[in-house]
Amino acid sequence: MLENKDQSRTSLSNFGEFKLIEHLTKQVEIHNKSTIKGIGDDCAILEYKNKQTLVTTDLLIEGVHFDLGYAPLKHLGYKAVMVNLSDVYAMNGIAKQITVSIAVSNRFSLEALEELYAGINLACNSYKVDLVGGDTTSSTKGMLISITAIGEVDKEDVVCRDGAKENDLLVVTGDLGAAYLGLQVLEREKQVFAVNPNAQPELENYTYLVERQLKPEARKDIVQLLKDLEVKPTSMIDISDGLSSEILHICKQSKVGCNLFEDKIPLDQQVISTCEEFNLDSTTIALSGGEDYELLFTVSQEDFPKIKANPNLTVIGHMTEESAGVNLVTRANQKIEIIAQGWNALD
Amino acid sequence: MLENKDQSRTSLSNFGEFKLIEHLTKQVEIHNKSTIKGIGDDCAILEYKNKQTLVTTDLLIEGVHFDLGYAPLKHLGYKAVMVNLSDVYAMNGIAKQITVSIAVSNRFSLEALEELYAGINLACNSYKVDLVGGDTTSSTKGMLISITAIGEVDKEDVVCRDGAKENDLLVVTGDLGAAYLGLQVLEREKQVFAVNPNAQPELENYTYLVERQLKPEARKDIVQLLKDLEVKPTSMIDISDGLSSEILHICKQSKVGCNLFEDKIPLDQQVISTCEEFNLDSTTIALSGGEDYELLFTVSQEDFPKIKANPNLTVIGHMTEESAGVNLVTRANQKIEIIAQGWNALD
Repeated sequence: MLENKDQSRTSLSNFGEFKLIEHLTKQVEIHNKSTIKGIGDDCAILEYKNKQTLVTTDLLIEGVHFDLGYAPLKHLGYKAVMVNLSDVYAMNGIAKQITVSIAVSNRFSLEALEELYAGINLACNSYKVDLVGGDTTSSTKGMLISITAIGEVDKEDVVCRDGAKENDLLVVTGDLGAAYLGLQVLEREKQVFAVNPNAQPELENYTYLVERQLKPEARKDIVQLLKDLEVKPTSMIDISDGLSSEILHICKQSKVGCNLFEDKIPLDQQVISTCEEFNLDSTTIALSGGEDYELLFTVSQEDFPKIKANPNLTVIGHMTEESAGVNLVTRANQKIEIIAQGWNALD
Repeated sequence: MLENKDQSRTSLSNFGEFKLIEHLTKQVEIHNKSTIKGIGDDCAILEYKNKQTLVTTDLLIEGVHFDLGYAPLKHLGYKAVMVNLSDVYAMNGIAKQITVSIAVSNRFSLEALEELYAGINLACNSYKVDLVGGDTTSSTKGMLISITAIGEVDKEDVVCRDGAKENDLLVVTGDLGAAYLGLQVLEREKQVFAVNPNAQPELENYTYLVERQLKPEARKDIVQLLKDLEVKPTSMIDISDGLSSEILHICKQSKVGCNLFEDKIPLDQQVISTCEEFNLDSTTIALSGGEDYELLFTVSQEDFPKIKANPNLTVIGHMTEESAGVNLVTRANQKIEIIAQGWNALD
């Protein structure tokens, strides 16, 4: 799990910027016909005919978004791509290209960057996405990764955040809260390791949680599933900051309210047992934990028969008129107003 | 010139991430029909019909690419956009959209970010580019800006780096070396200021140099000029790392050699006089200085009559067979092989 500190080490100062980019991207394959020209010119060239183009970008910073003490570089590269692809799928589109910019301080070796790019390439190959450009530079401190993803969607298929209507059903994919708990488990192991460097991490009971934190998967499969089920959501968003924050985004932009039912929120068994062990409330974790990269969407009630039997999809509430507010309906049938408690990047 | 340290200061911790983005981008206007949806969803939505899409990205880091001791934040925002637009123009395309991701430490105030965005907005309005998305986060140290630019070009108009042919003429826009010298002047003033904080910067003799460093303009006008002149370059690149580095890129990718004539390199009078004052060789500065954001391109000899009278364009050499190498022909008519000495981000 922990980064191997003994690996052979090639200093980055042996490389110029161009030689380094060439070296790190020589494994890059092109998967999409829309990628006319990738890395190696002032711009990449893409060609979409009668499609809409989707663009999204995310910035990940060491010490803020990741800790190399427990995030292996290959996983970090993979996750950085997932974070961006997830935004494209949340528009009901298919991601086609990414650009990757990285900055690293001199403490990183060539082998470290190769690990990072191995994860980026693995993600690109698994999701059929083309790496078409980027920038590589030095930083005065630590590592940061900035990725931009570009996707395509037929005009009639695009799903935004602002289309939810009163009485629509609120649906979530997968289960929630595991990624946040995975981080808590890893933080605890890091503390143990700091006190006793010979301690071996005890992670058997938390494998799902740790995997959700370190190697999340973006839900490309859901975009295909919705097509197969002939369901077009009325609104959709991905869950990066936590369920409550995402529901508030949909409600604000769609000008509707929402009743979310606590007992419907899908939780994995490891989430329930670990919440007990850590003395945490599982609903709070699902609402505010974030980094699940599941999709949250609304559908018309007419579509309920098409989705009700699907194990990937859980109806967790319904939309109301805006004046009714955004509420959690607890197991005790109390209504509590939902306030965003998601991760706040600027605290 | 120096940042005003006395301005009223609003702490960023009063803002959540979403409220901050909303606040900073509320002035954003949409200029292009191809921008279907901008900021405010998981992705921006763009629509290009029968055009090729260009994508480029650049990362600017405090302490590496800029020094806030002399780069006012508004200028920095403007320049960060120019750096990216320049890459789109270097493909003979027109930039249409950008995304902007920034990370800042707590030492920055809201007013500081407003200044930065004022420069970004000014650039977007001057160049008719739409700001369509981004990410705002905290950093553990300093400021960084990651911008991705998206542009469009008719398939038959796109110009890459790999199309230069033997006997083509090598042409550069504007003049070279001023941005690098501007940086030297600013560095010197910073040293003076460190010794004597009451010293006023003496910049009257260097106004052009300082402006080229702090507020460069990308050459959108050249893309239009080439269209008006009915000239399609055989290859093109923008000068970000210095003339020698860019010539080597074109020669390597086009598999040609080059003779560059020292006495043809266009230099502003301030570049010549300041090189004398600083005891620097003006040819070395033009070859290796970088950050000029001029365009370097090759054209067929047949096009010479169309370009020869134009004050924006200077023929500085011609392409040769690959085996003849890449050479500077000096004023004394000596041939010296050109080796990249451009800025190396990873030293």
